Amino acid sequence: MSDHPREFCGLFAAVGVAAAAEKTYFGLYALQHRGQESAGIAIPREGDIIAHRGMGLVGDVFSQADLARLASNVAVGHVRYSTTGSSNVANAQPLVAKTGKGPLALAHNGNLVNSSSLRAEYEAHGSIFQTSTDSEVILHLLAHRPQDRFEDALVATMREIRGAFSLLLLTPDEVIAIRDSQGFRPLVIGSLGDGFVVASETCAFDLVGAKYLREVEPGEMVFLAPGRPLRSTRFVAPAETKRAHCIFEHVYFSRPDSRVFGDSVHAVRRRCGEILAEEHPAPADIVMPIPDSGTSAALGYARASGLTFEMGFIRNHYVGRTFIQPTQGTRAADVGMKLNLVVDVVRGKRVVIVDDSIIRGTTSRAHVRRLRAAGAREVHMRIACPPVRNPCHYGIDFPTKTELIAAQHDIPDIAKILEVDSLGYLSLDGLLRATSFGAESYCTACYSGKYPVPIEAGLDKFVLERR
Amino acid sequence: MSDHPREFCGLFAAVGVAAAAEKTYFGLYALQHRGQESAGIAIPREGDIIAHRGMGLVGDVFSQADLARLASNVAVGHVRYSTTGSSNVANAQPLVAKTGKGPLALAHNGNLVNSSSLRAEYEAHGSIFQTSTDSEVILHLLAHRPQDRFEDALVATMREIRGAFSLLLLTPDEVIAIRDSQGFRPLVIGSLGDGFVVASETCAFDLVGAKYLREVEPGEMVFLAPGRPLRSTRFVAPAETKRAHCIFEHVYFSRPDSRVFGDSVHAVRRRCGEILAEEHPAPADIVMPIPDSGTSAALGYARASGLTFEMGFIRNHYVGRTFIQPTQGTRAADVGMKLNLVVDVVRGKRVVIVDDSIIRGTTSRAHVRRLRAAGAREVHMRIACPPVRNPCHYGIDFPTKTELIAAQHDIPDIAKILEVDSLGYLSLDGLLRATSFGAESYCTACYSGKYPVPIEAGLDKFVLERR
Amino acid sequence: MSDHPREFCGLFAAVGVAAAAEKTYFGLYALQHRGQESAGIAIPREGDIIAHRGMGLVGDVFSQADLARLASNVAVGHVRYSTTGSSNVANAQPLVAKTGKGPLALAHNGNLVNSSSLRAEYEAHGSIFQTSTDSEVILHLLAHRPQDRFEDALVATMREIRGAFSLLLLTPDEVIAIRDSQGFRPLVIGSLGDGFVVASETCAFDLVGAKYLREVEPGEMVFLAPGRPLRSTRFVAPAETKRAHCIFEHVYFSRPDSRVFGDSVHAVRRRCGEILAEEHPAPADIVMPIPDSGTSAALGYARASGLTFEMGFIRNHYVGRTFIQPTQGTRAADVGMKLNLVVDVVRGKRVVIVDDSIIRGTTSRAHVRRLRAAGAREVHMRIACPPVRNPCHYGIDFPTKTELIAAQHDIPDIAKILEVDSLGYLSLDGLLRATSFGAESYCTACYSGKYPVPIEAGLDKFVLERR
Amino acid sequence: MSDHPREFCGLFAAVGVAAAAEKTYFGLYALQHRGQESAGIAIPREGDIIAHRGMGLVGDVFSQADLARLASNVAVGHVRYSTTGSSNVANAQPLVAKTGKGPLALAHNGNLVNSSSLRAEYEAHGSIFQTSTDSEVILHLLAHRPQDRFEDALVATMREIRGAFSLLLLTPDEVIAIRDSQGFRPLVIGSLGDGFVVASETCAFDLVGAKYLREVEPGEMVFLAPGRPLRSTRFVAPAETKRAHCIFEHVYFSRPDSRVFGDSVHAVRRRCGEILAEEHPAPADIVMPIPDSGTSAALGYARASGLTFEMGFIRNHYVGRTFIQPTQGTRAADVGMKLNLVVDVVRGKRVVIVDDSIIRGTTSRAHVRRLRAAGAREVHMRIACPPVRNPCHYGIDFPTKTELIAAQHDIPDIAKILEVDSLGYLSLDGLLRATSFGAESYCTACYSGKYPVPIEAGLDKFVLERR
Repeated sequence: MSDHPREFCGLFAAVGVAAAAEKTYFGLYALQHRGQESAGIAIPREGDIIAHRGMGLVGDVFSQADLARLASNVAVGHVRYSTTGSSNVANAQPLVAKTGKGPLALAHNGNLVNSSSLRAEYEAHGSIFQTSTDSEVILHLLAHRPQDRFEDALVATMREIRGAFSLLLLTPDEVIAIRDSQGFRPLVIGSLGDGFVVASETCAFDLVGAKYLREVEPGEMVFLAPGRPLRSTRFVAPAETKRAHCIFEHVYFSRPDSRVFGDSVHAVRRRCGEILAEEHPAPADIVMPIPDSGTSAALGYARASGLTFEMGFIRNHYVGRTFIQPTQGTRAADVGMKLNLVVDVVRGKRVVIVDDSIIRGTTSRAHVRRLRAAGAREVHMRIACPPVRNPCHYGIDFPTKTELIAAQHDIPDIAKILEVDSLGYLSLDGLLRATSFGAESYCTACYSGKYPVPIEAGLDKFVLERR
Repeated sequence: MSDHPREFCGLFAAVGVAAAAEKTYFGLYALQHRGQESAGIAIPREGDIIAHRGMGLVGDVFSQADLARLASNVAVGHVRYSTTGSSNVANAQPLVAKTGKGPLALAHNGNLVNSSSLRAEYEAHGSIFQTSTDSEVILHLLAHRPQDRFEDALVATMREIRGAFSLLLLTPDEVIAIRDSQGFRPLVIGSLGDGFVVASETCAFDLVGAKYLREVEPGEMVFLAPGRPLRSTRFVAPAETKRAHCIFEHVYFSRPDSRVFGDSVHAVRRRCGEILAEEHPAPADIVMPIPDSGTSAALGYARASGLTFEMGFIRNHYVGRTFIQPTQGTRAADVGMKLNLVVDVVRGKRVVIVDDSIIRGTTSRAHVRRLRAAGAREVHMRIACPPVRNPCHYGIDFPTKTELIAAQHDIPDIAKILEVDSLGYLSLDGLLRATSFGAESYCTACYSGKYPVPIEAGLDKFVLERR
Repeated sequence: MSDHPREFCGLFAAVGVAAAAEKTYFGLYALQHRGQESAGIAIPREGDIIAHRGMGLVGDVFSQADLARLASNVAVGHVRYSTTGSSNVANAQPLVAKTGKGPLALAHNGNLVNSSSLRAEYEAHGSIFQTSTDSEVILHLLAHRPQDRFEDALVATMREIRGAFSLLLLTPDEVIAIRDSQGFRPLVIGSLGDGFVVASETCAFDLVGAKYLREVEPGEMVFLAPGRPLRSTRFVAPAETKRAHCIFEHVYFSRPDSRVFGDSVHAVRRRCGEILAEEHPAPADIVMPIPDSGTSAALGYARASGLTFEMGFIRNHYVGRTFIQPTQGTRAADVGMKLNLVVDVVRGKRVVIVDDSIIRGTTSRAHVRRLRAAGAREVHMRIACPPVRNPCHYGIDFPTKTELIAAQHDIPDIAKILEVDSLGYLSLDGLLRATSFGAESYCTACYSGKYPVPIEAGLDKFVLERR
Repeated sequence: MSDHPREFCGLFAAVGVAAAAEKTYFGLYALQHRGQESAGIAIPREGDIIAHRGMGLVGDVFSQADLARLASNVAVGHVRYSTTGSSNVANAQPLVAKTGKGPLALAHNGNLVNSSSLRAEYEAHGSIFQTSTDSEVILHLLAHRPQDRFEDALVATMREIRGAFSLLLLTPDEVIAIRDSQGFRPLVIGSLGDGFVVASETCAFDLVGAKYLREVEPGEMVFLAPGRPLRSTRFVAPAETKRAHCIFEHVYFSRPDSRVFGDSVHAVRRRCGEILAEEHPAPADIVMPIPDSGTSAALGYARASGLTFEMGFIRNHYVGRTFIQPTQGTRAADVGMKLNLVVDVVRGKRVVIVDDSIIRGTTSRAHVRRLRAAGAREVHMRIACPPVRNPCHYGIDFPTKTELIAAQHDIPDIAKILEVDSLGYLSLDGLLRATSFGAESYCTACYSGKYPVPIEAGLDKFVLERR
């Protein structure tokens, strides 16, 4: 439906908390934007692990009876997005396995860059794989580590895998929250009563009433068990870590009411809009966002430019609540079904529209045409990030280079294709200035092509399926 | 879920238009906010009328196969809200009846004030009723009129019923669009290719690509048939009509991208916000709406006051897309599941929140408490209409007087109950000034208690069911 | 799916019985063979009547929650079969109406022969109809009777309608069981604890643990209310009644474990098989039924002929439990999916197959071909009733005359069409001898063409829909 | 619902056959009695294997769209029964795994007796398990075999596993049908056009129009690929095989229209009834089966005894077609909902009822009580197999010894518990005489306690889950 790239996953865990599966259910609901195709929750039960997973939104996957069956004070949950090819319940997480080190459940956000070679190696030695996910490789590695002490085996495993991985590992006794040494994907810890919660984003804490404590640090493993204090250890020394936080979390993925990598997402986006107004002013009457992803930046743009802020597009409340049958007349109406346009706002006006990013450009052009049809005099498009020109290998599902409009065209051409009077992208420098961690701490590969961790040749997200 | 009153119905018809049922399906989708509990479409078929009706949202009621079965170039559709007591498919519209005047389908938006006595009279003479709706009375009247000419019988019927009625009547040959002589509820006509469309609001025209022509006038009957020009007649002379447009359509019901009673809804709301800022300024840092119903007014308030506009509350995209199980912990989280609060926006700030209206006040107080918890320094609430103190008898489902906070408390008390630092309601005069038709043309009974059409003693919306 | 004609309806009521709706639910389940397309239960509630109706089998229509909502000590239920054209929930029974004589619910088994003219008359006087069923006419008649006393109005109504009607009428106070003066369709009364039950067949009594009392007599109205003794009155004097029991109830419709019109259905069918063996002996090795409808007669045939009884065809347990997708290869397999053939039983044998009746003959021929393919040496078909040559106007849905094989062909031709070595039908005299009431007490119109009640010209079951 | 033991699985494959998945769908439908809880079909696709599996009956698991997606000329299918504990889609078969030997799908009927120790060994060496089935062990063994040639690895695997296994293994190129060296479970090969089909029972061949060729021999591996002749090899030499066909397939599991272990199931059961009549005559008026499982034996009993055969119990057609809500009154009615009793058949009679086996005895007693209530003068129960006293370790889910009535009581006591006038079980010798293979060729462990393959200590069907 949307022209936006999609995140692979969202994570949530509750430890030492009453009705942990219910808390996890609400936590996953708050993280639903990170994955809409499957959801799952695993809990420990008498030395074993049981799980409920299914295709669909969190509210569809879990009935009240399902939640009742998952009664526990420890739970780990996962929401997942997957492309059509591999969209099946076998790939839904948490993955559960019975191993020589006991039963395990694993929830993974991110993408490994050496899973393909690891998997080939394990298969050659007789291991069998049930899923087409890179996450299953982690379980095989862990099960095969010769170390007797579980924690030693875990450290050895984490040192073998490369790429992006925020992990929640459930054993019958505890939950272990782990983040790769670059910290590509977010992972935060909070407190709830006497227990702990872990989540991809802080917005999940707000919904369950938990208090934010801190991030899981890059290279850190945090052990959480009911009635025990948090225990931290590292599989990579702080000196060896090299931060590469995914800047696209700020641009689009994370919810504006979350804090991610130490910054308020809304505040970063608003600053992006302000810098964008400085970099690309527009001779216009009003500024309006493509809601909701462009709203924060549009507010910033309006403030910095002094132009009037308007809500010319309004999201239709019923989009997604009901499946509208595709019919012969639908396609034309498609964009109109998601965003209602207030014609009176734009008629005869010079309009700046602010969006978070452009991927294929098809939806953007449809918006522009609707504005023209409604009588907008000029349409100036402003984009709150640089042109997206490269694929992501760390967990975001961008389309291929041939589909990325900015990989195929320069900016003047894009302006023509989108039929706008002017087009301005935020500079990479501007984007990085809007954050507070320092330019060298972010992964900007989708804009700059600089990949912080080398990629196995030929890897893409289906490589595991095609073999 | 919501603290807002609910409209009873939305209407749509397509005449002389290819795939008329599909157009009606999309038209009803655009009008979904006017009724979410049942939906139906009726078409003529070889001298008879067939219909498909069901409980639920438009997209749930109609499958592709259902729409395929409704192939026709004429269609009449209806979405309906009903209270729990009478929520059943038998009451879903369009009502279909086989009568001595031929088969008929009726779609009705509004509420009759003399249906109770009419019904008693008909039952006494042997008529049987299948539904508990006032709409069925109209069909009985029409079927019993002695006039041989259908149009004469129709005029006689319309003169007998009193109250609010925007109607679409389908015969095997044509669609007749009718509006009561006060024009309580909106009803507009558009053109689509060589044919016509009729709808409760213009937003439905935008989605199907139709062009707005004009309103159905109070007291007018418009006859529409494929291949024939529009034909208009009246059951009440223009001089006898007395406009009483429902002002609450502007305040809350209609979509902001609609034109209603000749005004842009968004523009009226923004003007309300501007006048509200003049009537009730606030010593604050930021202005933010309760989205989406308060957004237009908040923009107006910000503009007129010069205060910074912010989006501190953001609607959760997944509300309503998935049924979240009620669990022990839900109730507290309920408000938080619908609106995400960007804590950084409000922390330490003096905040003006703008909403369209207050009914019970419970949701409003929950919002205020979340703002306080997030660190807002002051909370000033501004409401873009006067205090709602009286029930509606013309088609809106307000709660009873005992539940209406403004019917029970004066404004200073309400401010205390809502725990705000200040509270300001728009004046009735201010509200009427925001519209362009003239103060005497609107029904303001819910604010003023002045009912333009007298009510039968003891009538409420269940009177027909209780008898 | 089947080549058998279909009954229109089954009735059940419980009065003065705890959990009456649940009892009715089980009673309807026992009567499911009389109607599979819709089901409904109505109960009195505080002076009004509420009902739950839906499309599908009894178990699909009622959830536990539905039954819980119908808590009452009085309930009336109905299962209905309808042809595709009129298969919709609006036609599902019990019909519920609000009338000047109070709220009423009606469940009807049978078919009126003068409903078409009555309906035309009522429509001409302004009445409106919601369904395309003849049953609704009864409610209109009743509502319009001028008699003040309800019972007088009821008697007047029953005297106006003609044809087949076993009725259950529910008022807020009582249930009235009524049977037309010919007694076309069965209707029996039983006792359950201190209360009463009424049903189309006694098999429903067995399932709920009720005791058979007697039939509702032709021309009788039985009034049943909690805590009151059964009260009987008549709308036609016994001398004026002329029995015309539907002989096809014995041949096919009723369950073999029911008593119908005073006879055990199984015993009648077994006697039919015995007489059939005398009338049409066969030079064969084994006798086997088309199960289950031919089983009783085949047992009789085997006993009288001295031939070995076998079960060569066995019903597949999963037929109907799961909807098997129609695919390119299905049609050929269709018969094989319903009946499993034990090849070893028939290989090299001369086989008599016994079925209850032949309607179109298509299924019969498919059975014969399977037997030949399995190696049967000879196939002799014996049918436990006479050739069906005429439509039914009293409540059975036979196909039209052009589809009835025996209306188009003589018996030698049918034998050729069915590819059997010999074919024998039971004589009408033989069939009537198998029953105990006397030949003149049965309606045999489908065999003899003698219609006990004259039919309105042009009446068929869709006449009400087509007008 | 039933008191019968349950089979674990049914298998079907089509190779070199157009629309192979559809054929498999119908084949599984014919084998539905062997497993009702999950169903699955796997096909090769461009060097990989794809599968569709789900919980429920075959017709529920596969939509037309699912079958369309499985377009192929090779398919392997499986239906599975599992106890509640392990009833989940992860355990549904065919199991699919990606291994160093390529992608594989496995369908298994039977039960391994050394899977527990094998699994422990593999887990100790780092393998991870996704299911709690013994079948997954086979995939791990195969994937780990060091042999380079796939067939060599397969032979080595089959030599390591012990117990009952009829297998269908799908690779991207071929289907391999394998049967353990005892031949516990059936597996037969047929031809269909130019291709092959494989099934648990021949009844599946009849439905898809295939021709029976032969059994897969104990210890044989049959390789089937499109366009290639059947190729057979062995992992155990014929001299080393020791037949131990499950006699319970004849007693209850297999469909009467199947040939199993070279005998017609119906014929074996009828002979059992004949021998039973000789061993345990009864002074009675009629013989009637508990349908359908007792029907064949009852026919044999009637024939040998000269007593009149009757169908006093008739299966309700709607059992299982609709889920009947459990309510307060249900339990008593439960037996009555499945079998209708024709009261007139048994009233005043001395009745022999014939059933295939007795497991717990609870259902049998309910039947006896219904007969008494209907007026049967005497009730003599005859069982067409010996007393079931021991659990099965080769693929049948009997209840535990404490629940097996014959493991807890001697025959006179059982007669008292069942409230019958006499009780007779077929002797083991009699049962074996009814088959044609020779007494030493069958596994009779459930009767005799002689287990042909030694069992690992403590093994039961949940051992893999509990560890």
